[in-house]
Amino acid sequence: MLKEFQVHINKRFSFLKNGKLLIAISGGIDSVALTYLCKSLDLDFALAHCNFNLRGKESDADEDFVLELAELLDVEVFIQKFDTEVYAKKYKRSIQMAARELRYDWFNELAEQLEFDYILTAHHADDNLETFLINFTRGTGLNGLTGIPEINVNVVRPMLQFSREQIEAYAKANHIKWQEDSSNTSRKYLRNKLRHEVVPILKEINPQLLDSFQNTLEHLNDTADIVEESLNAVAKRAIVNIDEQGVTYKVAEFKKVNNPKAYLFEMLKDYGFTEWNDLVDLLNAETGKYIKSTSHRLIKHREFLILTDCHSEQDEASFVISSFDEKVETPLGILCFAEADAVLDNSKNTIYVDREQLNFPLELRLWQKEDVFCPFGMKGKKKLSKYLKDEKMSPVAKENTWVLTTDNAIVWVVGKRADNRFRVTDNTKQILKIGLK
Amino acid sequence: MLKEFQVHINKRFSFLKNGKLLIAISGGIDSVALTYLCKSLDLDFALAHCNFNLRGKESDADEDFVLELAELLDVEVFIQKFDTEVYAKKYKRSIQMAARELRYDWFNELAEQLEFDYILTAHHADDNLETFLINFTRGTGLNGLTGIPEINVNVVRPMLQFSREQIEAYAKANHIKWQEDSSNTSRKYLRNKLRHEVVPILKEINPQLLDSFQNTLEHLNDTADIVEESLNAVAKRAIVNIDEQGVTYKVAEFKKVNNPKAYLFEMLKDYGFTEWNDLVDLLNAETGKYIKSTSHRLIKHREFLILTDCHSEQDEASFVISSFDEKVETPLGILCFAEADAVLDNSKNTIYVDREQLNFPLELRLWQKEDVFCPFGMKGKKKLSKYLKDEKMSPVAKENTWVLTTDNAIVWVVGKRADNRFRVTDNTKQILKIGLK
Repeated sequence: MLKEFQVHINKRFSFLKNGKLLIAISGGIDSVALTYLCKSLDLDFALAHCNFNLRGKESDADEDFVLELAELLDVEVFIQKFDTEVYAKKYKRSIQMAARELRYDWFNELAEQLEFDYILTAHHADDNLETFLINFTRGTGLNGLTGIPEINVNVVRPMLQFSREQIEAYAKANHIKWQEDSSNTSRKYLRNKLRHEVVPILKEINPQLLDSFQNTLEHLNDTADIVEESLNAVAKRAIVNIDEQGVTYKVAEFKKVNNPKAYLFEMLKDYGFTEWNDLVDLLNAETGKYIKSTSHRLIKHREFLILTDCHSEQDEASFVISSFDEKVETPLGILCFAEADAVLDNSKNTIYVDREQLNFPLELRLWQKEDVFCPFGMKGKKKLSKYLKDEKMSPVAKENTWVLTTDNAIVWVVGKRADNRFRVTDNTKQILKIGLK
Repeated sequence: MLKEFQVHINKRFSFLKNGKLLIAISGGIDSVALTYLCKSLDLDFALAHCNFNLRGKESDADEDFVLELAELLDVEVFIQKFDTEVYAKKYKRSIQMAARELRYDWFNELAEQLEFDYILTAHHADDNLETFLINFTRGTGLNGLTGIPEINVNVVRPMLQFSREQIEAYAKANHIKWQEDSSNTSRKYLRNKLRHEVVPILKEINPQLLDSFQNTLEHLNDTADIVEESLNAVAKRAIVNIDEQGVTYKVAEFKKVNNPKAYLFEMLKDYGFTEWNDLVDLLNAETGKYIKSTSHRLIKHREFLILTDCHSEQDEASFVISSFDEKVETPLGILCFAEADAVLDNSKNTIYVDREQLNFPLELRLWQKEDVFCPFGMKGKKKLSKYLKDEKMSPVAKENTWVLTTDNAIVWVVGKRADNRFRVTDNTKQILKIGLK
């Protein structure tokens, strides 16, 4: 088995020979076997062990085991303790997600600082099969069925095509010792259930299951390449603009394809949408119609679909400005006040007003339906909603309209139009410059 | 449950109301439930039952049951007996494939002759899940994971989104009777194993498994649409010719895509190839290199790949022609002999020879490497291989070159060049016309 492993790695991962490697080691059979295997191949590697402090004494025993192994094999070892539960709580992650983030963040930090070329993990074919089945039972798409990648940027999984059985045979034949993991987290529960109850039956049905699975993965990954290429081509034609406000898609491009839903799903699946048929209907909807997800909004605007962050907090947002000396950081930029100087700034991001007309505190807030103002240079009032419509602003730009007010009167439709009531006149004693940087 | 089923069918399959339907009925719970359901909806349907004669008395009992049910419900019924085992042996099919072919052939025949608009089958969500898992355990690609289609041309599966549990509940609540199937063919063994041992655990892990599965199928089918569209686009650019000799692909088009193997696999997967990496290498191989599958051959010819039938039997093929009176059916057409008449035929498919020079039997066979002939109009001999090369024939056309010989001397390189030795001269007493129709 050792010989077989060595040949496989030399052939498929020959680049490891010339690299500085960091092996992610838990102390379990897989990562310990990988360590011995790398040692037998005389590769240049160090060990990195995370102590997630999730299993009390057992976690510490694993740490000790890894330290001893490093000494035995005479290789460098890095140990890091994590407060996984604290992290998980703070960032609202599952324990498993938290451990994953902490682990890979640390590995990458180590790799960067100490110039490791590759991070090696000990995932094997049975892990891969279990992951496939986990994703499948939860419901997934093609991307959930393409398996764990063998090489992903700097993370390499040299044993991904070996079975658990092969690794156990290797470990036993070579009298390798490892730590048993008695943990039974819910993730492990799920995995154990598949491992011990489902996979054995599938292997009984097809003794070559792992080989068939390998072929399936290869085909599905090839198919994923076709899909990706096709999506890129459609996206290239469909996306006409990307800026802070969002992504603008040409509706016509989605109408050219056989199954618009398929493309919309693939392009927008990461933005929390669930009602895909409604999204398709948006292609033929009136301007202004939109669909909201928990985090994003897709708006029909003339011949375009515009994807934006919902920033639902902003809906309520307002900033109170207590004095001229304050600089206020807003979603639009930094709002600041100054005495007018000799250089007149004509940009849309600056206005000049009569200081005496302003009563503090001022308020900067998103516009509201009932807002009315006196557009600069005009006599009389105008509904802000009418003004925005007349300006033919897109729904997104409309939504992002902020107003600066004093005593509830609009001083400035920020970046768009000053109010006539606060303009500099012959009677103005002090000119105030308000700008957005 | 009945209400739920009815609403679903009225909503999703409203077109069934106006059609003449043929229900494929085995006598088992699913198809009997479908029959009662259609009756409750007052649809216009008849029953069609196949007796495959595979389970002796049980098969006959099923037939009787269906006859009685038809009488009970007062609907038309068609019964057909099949010698499934004989058919399977004759056409080298598995029993299951044989039954499938016989069944659908007969259903379609009935539908055509008696003008049924739709054939209804009783497949349900658990069947679909089991099929997915069967394909998965065997190894498959995306197409093996997209499930049974709800509507496929004229075959409709109205219960595909219902679970076995729902159907059982419906049947029991409505005191419906059905026939239990005690068969345990290998196909059923596999299905039963998944049904009774694997699926229950998956449902334990995720009680909403069938719903998740439905979502997964929907996503995978959408993805399959993207793949199909993309393949069609590439095929349209790549295929420059299709004729009896085969399909000609432009190599350059495969070199433009990110993952040529993915596209080659999808386009050629039905032709028995297995060495996909070798197929990719063919893109950069010398003219004349080829890869054979059990049934086909892909040949590199200049800037093209040419896919042909291997017709491996022909490699050895030869036809012995005992007399002038014989008409010989060959892969090229019918070879026939006649006295020359007044009308001279100048086509490549006819030659005129000196009858006295020919000794029977003649032989028609594929050319061989060592063949030598005297091209008509030339003095001296020429290697046939050299002649074919000089004619710049494609590898496929080369392979399809047949020669007609007498006493092992070439009389005609069929359809290409007559031999000078057998030409009509001033001394010819009788002119023989040899033609290919």
